[in-house]
Amino acid sequence: MTTHPTQPSPGVCPELTPAAPLTEEVRDRLAHPDEAELAALDAWWRADNYLTVGQIYLQANPLLREPLSPEHIKPRLLGHWGTSPGLAFVYAHASRLVRHTGQQLIYLAGPGHGGPALVGAAYLEGEYTETFPEITQDVDGLRRFFRQFSAPGGIPSHASVTTPGSIHEGGELGYALIHAFGAVMDNPDLVALTVVGDGEAETGPLEGSWKGISFLNPARDGAVLPVLHLNGAKIAGPTVLARKDPEEVRQLFRGHGYEVLEVEGDDLPGMHQRFAETLATAYGLIRDIQDRARAGEAPTTRPRWPMIVLRSPKGWTGPHEVDGTLIEGTWRAHQVPLSGVKDDPDHLRLLEEWLRSYRPEELFDEAGAPTELVTRNNPAGPLRMSASPHANGGLLTQDLDLPDVRDFEIDVPAPAVVRHESTRVLGELMKALYERNPRTFRLFCPDETNSNRIGAVFDVSDRMTMERVTEDDVKLSADGRVMEVLSEHNCHGWLEGYTLTGRHGLFATYEAFAMVSASQTIQHCKWLEEAHHLDWRADIPSLNILLSSTAWRNDHNGFSHQGPGLIQNVLQMRGDVARIYLPADANTLLAVSDHCFRSRSHVNLIVQDKQPQLQYLTLDEAREHCERGASIWDWAGNELDSREEPDVVLACAGDVVTMETVAAAQILRERLPELSVRVVNVVNLMTLARRKDHPNGMSDMFFEELFTTWQDVVFSFHGYPGAIHQLVHGRNDADRFHVRGFIEQGTTTTPFDMVVRNQASRYHLVMDALNNSQRHPRGSAELKAWCEAQLDRHEEYIREHLQDMPEVRDWVAQDPGSEVSGRPVEA
Amino acid sequence: MTTHPTQPSPGVCPELTPAAPLTEEVRDRLAHPDEAELAALDAWWRADNYLTVGQIYLQANPLLREPLSPEHIKPRLLGHWGTSPGLAFVYAHASRLVRHTGQQLIYLAGPGHGGPALVGAAYLEGEYTETFPEITQDVDGLRRFFRQFSAPGGIPSHASVTTPGSIHEGGELGYALIHAFGAVMDNPDLVALTVVGDGEAETGPLEGSWKGISFLNPARDGAVLPVLHLNGAKIAGPTVLARKDPEEVRQLFRGHGYEVLEVEGDDLPGMHQRFAETLATAYGLIRDIQDRARAGEAPTTRPRWPMIVLRSPKGWTGPHEVDGTLIEGTWRAHQVPLSGVKDDPDHLRLLEEWLRSYRPEELFDEAGAPTELVTRNNPAGPLRMSASPHANGGLLTQDLDLPDVRDFEIDVPAPAVVRHESTRVLGELMKALYERNPRTFRLFCPDETNSNRIGAVFDVSDRMTMERVTEDDVKLSADGRVMEVLSEHNCHGWLEGYTLTGRHGLFATYEAFAMVSASQTIQHCKWLEEAHHLDWRADIPSLNILLSSTAWRNDHNGFSHQGPGLIQNVLQMRGDVARIYLPADANTLLAVSDHCFRSRSHVNLIVQDKQPQLQYLTLDEAREHCERGASIWDWAGNELDSREEPDVVLACAGDVVTMETVAAAQILRERLPELSVRVVNVVNLMTLARRKDHPNGMSDMFFEELFTTWQDVVFSFHGYPGAIHQLVHGRNDADRFHVRGFIEQGTTTTPFDMVVRNQASRYHLVMDALNNSQRHPRGSAELKAWCEAQLDRHEEYIREHLQDMPEVRDWVAQDPGSEVSGRPVEA
Repeated sequence: MTTHPTQPSPGVCPELTPAAPLTEEVRDRLAHPDEAELAALDAWWRADNYLTVGQIYLQANPLLREPLSPEHIKPRLLGHWGTSPGLAFVYAHASRLVRHTGQQLIYLAGPGHGGPALVGAAYLEGEYTETFPEITQDVDGLRRFFRQFSAPGGIPSHASVTTPGSIHEGGELGYALIHAFGAVMDNPDLVALTVVGDGEAETGPLEGSWKGISFLNPARDGAVLPVLHLNGAKIAGPTVLARKDPEEVRQLFRGHGYEVLEVEGDDLPGMHQRFAETLATAYGLIRDIQDRARAGEAPTTRPRWPMIVLRSPKGWTGPHEVDGTLIEGTWRAHQVPLSGVKDDPDHLRLLEEWLRSYRPEELFDEAGAPTELVTRNNPAGPLRMSASPHANGGLLTQDLDLPDVRDFEIDVPAPAVVRHESTRVLGELMKALYERNPRTFRLFCPDETNSNRIGAVFDVSDRMTMERVTEDDVKLSADGRVMEVLSEHNCHGWLEGYTLTGRHGLFATYEAFAMVSASQTIQHCKWLEEAHHLDWRADIPSLNILLSSTAWRNDHNGFSHQGPGLIQNVLQMRGDVARIYLPADANTLLAVSDHCFRSRSHVNLIVQDKQPQLQYLTLDEAREHCERGASIWDWAGNELDSREEPDVVLACAGDVVTMETVAAAQILRERLPELSVRVVNVVNLMTLARRKDHPNGMSDMFFEELFTTWQDVVFSFHGYPGAIHQLVHGRNDADRFHVRGFIEQGTTTTPFDMVVRNQASRYHLVMDALNNSQRHPRGSAELKAWCEAQLDRHEEYIREHLQDMPEVRDWVAQDPGSEVSGRPVEA
Repeated sequence: MTTHPTQPSPGVCPELTPAAPLTEEVRDRLAHPDEAELAALDAWWRADNYLTVGQIYLQANPLLREPLSPEHIKPRLLGHWGTSPGLAFVYAHASRLVRHTGQQLIYLAGPGHGGPALVGAAYLEGEYTETFPEITQDVDGLRRFFRQFSAPGGIPSHASVTTPGSIHEGGELGYALIHAFGAVMDNPDLVALTVVGDGEAETGPLEGSWKGISFLNPARDGAVLPVLHLNGAKIAGPTVLARKDPEEVRQLFRGHGYEVLEVEGDDLPGMHQRFAETLATAYGLIRDIQDRARAGEAPTTRPRWPMIVLRSPKGWTGPHEVDGTLIEGTWRAHQVPLSGVKDDPDHLRLLEEWLRSYRPEELFDEAGAPTELVTRNNPAGPLRMSASPHANGGLLTQDLDLPDVRDFEIDVPAPAVVRHESTRVLGELMKALYERNPRTFRLFCPDETNSNRIGAVFDVSDRMTMERVTEDDVKLSADGRVMEVLSEHNCHGWLEGYTLTGRHGLFATYEAFAMVSASQTIQHCKWLEEAHHLDWRADIPSLNILLSSTAWRNDHNGFSHQGPGLIQNVLQMRGDVARIYLPADANTLLAVSDHCFRSRSHVNLIVQDKQPQLQYLTLDEAREHCERGASIWDWAGNELDSREEPDVVLACAGDVVTMETVAAAQILRERLPELSVRVVNVVNLMTLARRKDHPNGMSDMFFEELFTTWQDVVFSFHGYPGAIHQLVHGRNDADRFHVRGFIEQGTTTTPFDMVVRNQASRYHLVMDALNNSQRHPRGSAELKAWCEAQLDRHEEYIREHLQDMPEVRDWVAQDPGSEVSGRPVEA
């Protein structure tokens, strides 16, 4: 069994050095493999193909040391053959490139369902055994290796989180290049070789991701080498690109800005020779671009990066025809090309012939380990792609150099009396992060950095572009590291690639349009959930998402911009990954952000509007509040000492609804002082969950300390009411929670009117409190009538004036002793 | 005020006739507008620009009949100026095209935030006043028209559902071309002129949608004419495409398969002349392609459809510079280029100059109506783009010719004894729909039609492609009308465009990957929600979504393929739109599908697995079940007459969990006959909601008839448990619902083991039932121990055999008198 002294283990990262200069000699050797190299290349490829077929079919007799018989065949045949030989072919050549150049390379398989090829590669490189010691490099290990594939307690059929060397599962298609570009940003010594399947190439996110080169600076970023693998078919038919005129394909990718290199065929060793030469050319172009840029020759325009179009048959080297039907090169090769092998002796024979066609006796030694002919093609140590620390980014992760957030504290002389655009403090904090962490922190945002009031980052970093810059442009350059592209898919996925390789960042977007990339959020959660089960996967920086043009303040944009849906999705993810924060003011946002930027392997969803909003807490108070996740805001309520429990609890989570709650409490305090009212604010939504459902979940005791045991709770929530309904299910007498949240209705209106339309205005909350309180002090009915009158006045006023009533618009909390706020202005 | 005798009203559709043959004379006239035409074009354009600026700024003095003063200015300045003049420019020319050719044209504005230009166009065409009679064509109507924009009780700032002529809101960017292609499928006489903004062009979905032409047959489909509007900037900076070398842009779109026509500049009347000529060329190319195809000259390859790249400055004709800063042509023109107009006399003056630069006195007559100089450019009647019945598709909707679903009934001799791939019946039903409705029904699916077992449609229709077809291809041709493209965004959006223009269809996809297009699902729900408020919007066919590779059966694919998230999202949508069905067998699916294909303006989410599954109900039973939405399955339970209420209720929604529930009930019936057990199946999830929350919601009485008043309910649910938690919140003693649903965990396993891992297996359900029952008959403890032993056996078995135990795999219900099922097999 091969040993790997440089094998990384969590917390200990092997030393990586930049590749040596690329001499003419190396270029030439790379382009023209000699006979011995060809033999090794081909042997490695055959071995990986053999392992692929073995994983799909075999549960015993892994090296065909006896004739194949039905009991050797798995009961369920699962997996995807079609794409696998192509993936293995490219992998073999990439390994050879690494061996000759010392290039740090990671391999992303867009068609991740070709998992067996990637898993097989890790096995051939010895990394698999290092990671999973029970999968030994012998006959018995091989049998276990085959049996675990797509099997109970085993591994998925994809290049998943369980696959050493993978940062890209490739299950949900579309993100291969996006992840690759994210991975190489600020990673000058890394090349991400990325296979794009022609099926995946049809997806929107993938088509939108070729433009990554417009955001890649060759002087300080690494490179992505896309290999578009046109094997012709997807699950059930041909692909669009495979059937287009090749000249049109060439034009398309030239139009995307690439130098298009092409390799086509299925002849051997011709394909090896041509691919080696093409890969050498592509790599040479990359190094030339980088060398020029790093020699200080700043590119005036985006360089023309290479890409490879590889046309090889789907299911290459597999059964060409079965039962008279063409398999190879068609969609029929997609999954399991030979079915019914256990029962059909002809198919069993075909399978055996197929397996033996790889000449396993040359590939595996007596013990069952890969022969030297095969392993000769492996790079050494951490340069093996399956062992790259870049693909286990926690190993490379360094803590952010975080400033003291106290430097950004907003002065809050008293709760709810000053207004501030809260997200601005996050902008200031990120400005400091850019300054202190010039290679390991980035902000990703679809063109809304300034709109989101986090534009302070532009004081220290421009927007990034490699396209033409004019004199009228502002804060835009190839040196910029603020990533603005009008594509949530790119922003989200670039950040994923960036964090998966060990760096930090934040994705800021509109709340409603966060649903565009919700599927990515979910898939990334799933990746992290799974990674938590694997000791060898070191924790990576969290994926931080800021939603700062929220549902409640898109009053004028109407229905398409109003949707708090992402909360609802993150809520379903596992507790060890999902976090949802709803800070109500600036200092709370500071405390939350500070925590998120330190956290690891979470998806932190922060929801807070960018508009001027009331400030409640000092930083110390905010920190304490965040520590608990939810607190009683004594100053806001009117809890009477004479009573053991308040008559009613006004709870809130979310900035706009918090202001309404505080205002409602003040109305009650002033107008119905006999009513004992408690105000509870929730900043960490997950604290509402039960302990067994979420590690941040409150104990029943703390829950009841906040929300009482049985008093009614009027809960104003930023998101859909159902989120709170599901969170409190199972708590004592959960029906006492009356939730006012966002309701689908598509309003074009004013800011305050949004809360009115959603029946979450201060007036509604007062009425709710009175309707649900256990006590009904004198004056309750009058107060309700007053609230209704206020709502009528409001309706009339906004129709006339097109904006909210001044006493609502400019509302601030008042000392109970002073003039009563919210008093109707006499007309 | 102009009258429009042909104005459509719901249910009454104006007659539309195909455009006349395009003679050389018309082509020539089109390409070369004379002076008078240029004057009208320009006047119309100026008028629309004037209306745009008025909508953004004015609340009074709409025609500047007195000097502009601060009180004429709105208190909140909202809206997007930058894109609007470009949208108006193209609209003016498109109208002229229609006048000369009689072409049925609809106009989709990708940058839908340029709403004022579209709303203004509808006003100038008279359609706005027809639709909203209070917005009269006079000074007072104009004032109301300006005031309502982006204001309380008014209209959103986008080309939304309230905009006559719009089928595309353009709020969430990326779907303009997708909607356009869907709209013209089977619509041979329609051209969808679609403006793509250069911001939107950066999104993944948009980049993935250019390939629509690979799926458009010129003989029987209409055409899409994309106008890529490179005005250079988005919200805060330049766009990628605007800064690319024009030759690269040309290559890109040639690569996408288009004939690229270009117009650039800001000179007048030069731009009018050049755009008219280019539009004439583009339209001529379209008609040539169509004429050739329709003359029977079947295209052997995809035609090269035209597109136009229009380069004009952002904010064209607006303030060029303000306070010494360049505005026109930059991102600063995006929204409101002149701010603080109420308070800044200089800005007020600039605004007045800007407005007067359009010479309103030439554009509006004494009364305030558009002058003849302006209206001369309008087409007549339903050819006006704002009045096109295609953009109010309910007017054109015809009921599907539906077969009797009884023809497809599956024979169910007894409940839970035969297995069937249920979705196959839907395939058969859709096959009949294709046959009976050859122009008004299509299936959209990312390459999984056969995989989803609905491939019967291929008996009568091929997959559609305009790309090269080879002799080895199967069921693939330009005549095909089954739409397979590996892009959920395209599939979903094409179906939206198809239904918005009045035709019927279904989108089938993997459950987990339905999240890729979840944002589209939500946005379409929002469109329909809003349309329900507008009498003049006629109901359109529902958007039907089938999720048939479900979370529970992606055991081998692992975590990326396991996610029931879409249910959670549709659940939050309004009751008048959202429907979620979880049929457990084939006949129930038939009943559900029959209902969905007849329904209007809903989003129907149907979740059912494609794998062989047990059958429970005859068609009559299924229909009755669907009618109620949820029923007690007497045959499955063991309710003892001697007791008023059962000891425990086993409820279920979803096919896999229904089987487990039925099996659990059988175990209880056989092994603990003293326990009174009720089984309830829910097929229409929304019936669980309260009446006030959803029109399908059950009354409390019916709810308690099913679930009892206070007995515990063990509820097995297909989706995340939180969905049921939120649905039952507020029902009597909701905490008695103990939900077993899908838990995020990423399992690679076997089918039965999926339910074991999710703690929703029959054994878990039996234990849950016993733990939560009010009664504990003798033998309960032994039965729990037996269940635990079964789970241990199972674990051991699958590790050894890689598949489920035969008695679980092949489980069918047994007559209580016969051998006890589920009995441990002696080893």
